[in-house]
Amino acid sequence: MDLQFNIQIDFYQILDFIGTLAFAISGTRLAAAKHFDLFGAYIVGLTTAIGGGTVRDLLLGLSPFWMKDPFYLICSAIAVIWVVAFRKVLVRQDNTWFLFDTIGLALFTVVGMEKTLANDFPYWCAICMGAMTGAAGGVLRDVLINEVPLIFRKEIYALACVMGGIVFFLLHYFGCDENLCGILAGISVIIIRLLAVKYHLSLPRLKVEGTKEE
Amino acid sequence: MDLQFNIQIDFYQILDFIGTLAFAISGTRLAAAKHFDLFGAYIVGLTTAIGGGTVRDLLLGLSPFWMKDPFYLICSAIAVIWVVAFRKVLVRQDNTWFLFDTIGLALFTVVGMEKTLANDFPYWCAICMGAMTGAAGGVLRDVLINEVPLIFRKEIYALACVMGGIVFFLLHYFGCDENLCGILAGISVIIIRLLAVKYHLSLPRLKVEGTKEE
Amino acid sequence: MDLQFNIQIDFYQILDFIGTLAFAISGTRLAAAKHFDLFGAYIVGLTTAIGGGTVRDLLLGLSPFWMKDPFYLICSAIAVIWVVAFRKVLVRQDNTWFLFDTIGLALFTVVGMEKTLANDFPYWCAICMGAMTGAAGGVLRDVLINEVPLIFRKEIYALACVMGGIVFFLLHYFGCDENLCGILAGISVIIIRLLAVKYHLSLPRLKVEGTKEE
Repeated sequence: MDLQFNIQIDFYQILDFIGTLAFAISGTRLAAAKHFDLFGAYIVGLTTAIGGGTVRDLLLGLSPFWMKDPFYLICSAIAVIWVVAFRKVLVRQDNTWFLFDTIGLALFTVVGMEKTLANDFPYWCAICMGAMTGAAGGVLRDVLINEVPLIFRKEIYALACVMGGIVFFLLHYFGCDENLCGILAGISVIIIRLLAVKYHLSLPRLKVEGTKEE
Repeated sequence: MDLQFNIQIDFYQILDFIGTLAFAISGTRLAAAKHFDLFGAYIVGLTTAIGGGTVRDLLLGLSPFWMKDPFYLICSAIAVIWVVAFRKVLVRQDNTWFLFDTIGLALFTVVGMEKTLANDFPYWCAICMGAMTGAAGGVLRDVLINEVPLIFRKEIYALACVMGGIVFFLLHYFGCDENLCGILAGISVIIIRLLAVKYHLSLPRLKVEGTKEE
Repeated sequence: MDLQFNIQIDFYQILDFIGTLAFAISGTRLAAAKHFDLFGAYIVGLTTAIGGGTVRDLLLGLSPFWMKDPFYLICSAIAVIWVVAFRKVLVRQDNTWFLFDTIGLALFTVVGMEKTLANDFPYWCAICMGAMTGAAGGVLRDVLINEVPLIFRKEIYALACVMGGIVFFLLHYFGCDENLCGILAGISVIIIRLLAVKYHLSLPRLKVEGTKEE
């Protein structure tokens, strides 16, 4: 019993490490492409990794999760070291990091939902918070490197989180155990994201005629 | 008595709907002009509509207003549908949406002030929070679409909120009923904004010689 | 005794005034270089001055420091007046304002650390919050004027805050009085920053081959 619990925790922590690392590496690489210095690259990586959860915690009125445990700051430092050490072969690791990024997206979405529900907010709010936990870090990253946020223009990303959130809600509504809801919702996020990238699925772009800036 | 109360609530809700819709449409249109996809346009519209109030609530230490009621998320979805449905004739609606946007600006300013005063902050702080409720959503919108915030360069906008706030304060100081203060402050915001656009009133721009980036 | 206390307070307030003014002037000047209007320049100056402390207070779950005292809003107004009044000779004041900016950086770092420790967060968190108090205002400023944040690319800036924080921690660890820790940490920040600018010390920039946007 105890053993099982510990293994579960460890498995969660491994996923959390993988996801955080992948998010931080994505931020660090984009910062490097903009010729940021080491410190700047670290901050952008860190923001990518913890930004979504921080915004969620502030909106929920909670103390940000990373302020109790230096784990996330250390992860982001490892990400910078990784990027420096493997800078010549990072492109070859693209598929791996894409997969880890997707695992992180799924995990953060589910964690964000569970934390929101645990604080007695309604389900539609939990779905928003889940998507925000997964996707807002990338938006903050793009704001810091002064680019238009990528997730508003490329393959389905945040929408995968929303869909995962709806899966969570439906399963829970029909009486499924909450742990299982979370696992299946996370798998849904991963599948949707993988399919979206494989088949270049993206939402239609808006075209409006004669838009003046107001 | 009861009836009157209900009518008042409804009138407030109609104004809130109009204002939220106008703000969201302004965000959605600007996102469309930048070729965002449907989801991105929705998020930019939503941020424009709820951004100011969210920043205000976080600064006041309150739970963000939109997390209790899906009304604002639905409004922003209606805004996207509207923009898609009327994309060829939106320019012809410009005057209407400008008017609704101005109504929203006035309403959000007054609501922001009242909420700040109700939480025992001083008057100068309420004036700041009123202007922030009205104008910060537009700033966040411009950050998301990676443009220099419009309100820092064009006709008087946030300053109309500040002036409305001062009207509120003066009326209240001289013993006017708080409901009436709010209504007259809101009307002041609308009049100042309409005059500013009609006569192209804007603040002088700063010119500084030899400014180096520090 | 009483007198000494008052003088200490006054000395702190003088430093706070100098630092706030220097930060606000840096923001106002950059806004002016981007042709912002008076109101926009004021907001950018104000954000530079109070942004770091506001983010810190939100993360710590406290009411933002500037909402209790109009001092900081008035300082930022003085900054705009100063920039307008001396616009033709501001370049000649560059060394003075650089020094004042550095004093502000040191003060805000120490204040940020002390406030974080007083709220029972761990030391590594206080070092983060110190650096954030010092440097995040400048990041927000650069986001508002739509530029890549300067501190991620130029001479050592935020890292000086981190180093000052480590000095604070080490002195405190070895039993030094907390007031003295703060003073020495602040002096460390100033010295590191001055040396960094004098000798153009900066961190290496990251170079990554074949970085694709993910």
